[in-house]
Amino acid sequence: MSILGQRRRRPGPSVRDRVTEFRDGARLVHEDRVVTEEPLELRVGWPGSPAQRVAVTMRTPGHDFELAAGWLVHEGVTVPEEVRAVRYCTDETLGDLEEFNVVTVDLATAPRTMPAARMVSSACGVCGTDTVQDVLSRAEAVPPVSLSAATVLALPDRLREEQPGFERTGGIHAAGLFEADGTAVVVREDVGRHNAVDKAVGSRILGRAPVPPVLVLSGRIGFELVQKAVVSGVGALVAVGAPTSLAVSLAREADLVLVGFTRGQRFVAYAGADRITD
Amino acid sequence: MSILGQRRRRPGPSVRDRVTEFRDGARLVHEDRVVTEEPLELRVGWPGSPAQRVAVTMRTPGHDFELAAGWLVHEGVTVPEEVRAVRYCTDETLGDLEEFNVVTVDLATAPRTMPAARMVSSACGVCGTDTVQDVLSRAEAVPPVSLSAATVLALPDRLREEQPGFERTGGIHAAGLFEADGTAVVVREDVGRHNAVDKAVGSRILGRAPVPPVLVLSGRIGFELVQKAVVSGVGALVAVGAPTSLAVSLAREADLVLVGFTRGQRFVAYAGADRITD
Repeated sequence: MSILGQRRRRPGPSVRDRVTEFRDGARLVHEDRVVTEEPLELRVGWPGSPAQRVAVTMRTPGHDFELAAGWLVHEGVTVPEEVRAVRYCTDETLGDLEEFNVVTVDLATAPRTMPAARMVSSACGVCGTDTVQDVLSRAEAVPPVSLSAATVLALPDRLREEQPGFERTGGIHAAGLFEADGTAVVVREDVGRHNAVDKAVGSRILGRAPVPPVLVLSGRIGFELVQKAVVSGVGALVAVGAPTSLAVSLAREADLVLVGFTRGQRFVAYAGADRITD
Repeated sequence: MSILGQRRRRPGPSVRDRVTEFRDGARLVHEDRVVTEEPLELRVGWPGSPAQRVAVTMRTPGHDFELAAGWLVHEGVTVPEEVRAVRYCTDETLGDLEEFNVVTVDLATAPRTMPAARMVSSACGVCGTDTVQDVLSRAEAVPPVSLSAATVLALPDRLREEQPGFERTGGIHAAGLFEADGTAVVVREDVGRHNAVDKAVGSRILGRAPVPPVLVLSGRIGFELVQKAVVSGVGALVAVGAPTSLAVSLAREADLVLVGFTRGQRFVAYAGADRITD
């Protein structure tokens, strides 16, 4: 049973992390801040009913009660006047790591609609560590990938060259699969980053062809994108944007090269920096 | 019953649209391209079982079979070797607009896991028009909002001023609620844009306070974000990024002011341009 004074500190909106920055040919190891990403389970209770799970979503910890109330109203589960109270779950079956990842909203009356387990994560638990372990159990074993720093720096431009949609609308993301020498194999676009990755890998599945070792993304790197890479057997993920804490954790556990902020003559390696050659 | 020759054209990755651009004090009406966003329903079938719905996701049409195959493998529903065939659904109960929005994947054996209606949309149908109508049925009636062009131009900077997380990690989105004169009421951050909106609106729900009329977003504008605005009774949505086709459709139907690409001395109004004053 958790005791108030012994409680784990509530996770903050960002975490400190040691990263390797490649800049103008130099390699600098320093501390950086990464945005926190953790699962949140939402439950609703009402008079005469035990609390029921309605959703699990990935979020940055902080203002969790507001997130819960806003989500339920936006999804039509309830209306503002019927929100009575919001609390972290104190269920004794929850582990320490899950303590601040389960929120219960008490309603004055029964829900207007109940989503069918909407956005339920494929993870068994609702703490980041369990989520990572769940993905690792489904990971493809792949030989480690090595990349040169010059190849990494060239990848975003090569992705853009294969991306006609962005020029037209400015509103689309791209995901591309590349060989370790930087050769493009397949690039796909979508309004959702996760869809673009599904399409790129799906083209190889339907073509009965192996998945190339490097995945390049036009945007940021959330947990779900590293999950797709790990399940597909991709060995390196290079992105233009920032990664989340859970994306970094999974990449390290799965022995994936994870690179973010690839812009100009600079990029930051969050995992597998020793497999990037000068 | 649909007849091959009479089939609706397959939706493309972007659509032409007439927009009003505000640039350096001038108002220019011209054609623009907006990225297409439409729901896609994924079904799986296997020997001895009728096809079953496993997910509905918003996506940009194109490479839908690849999306379906990649999604199923990434979620652990199947493995590449067990994907036998992929097809658009030809169910006679589907309307013309749904024709290219339902994909069935035939598997060699039963699924390894079946997600519990993962990412199921709250919409009844799987065409954009039905999805829009479903949200309108839950919309708050609100008086129309007017904004000055000068206020619109100032909003992104005001949002950024209230956003400490971005400076630290570069990986976080913000959503803010503002008065029509540009006064900030509440700004929230999250790794997910939709979560940031839930938090901002949720803070008003928990405070038993009215929702201010203007929502400002640091990123792009997908359908789901306009949906949240409409359900909350927000009257204007101003973003730094691009909107999708379905976001524009819903904003117009709900009589919302919708502004994208708010950068420097320029923005583009996709809906409600007549309610932006000089």
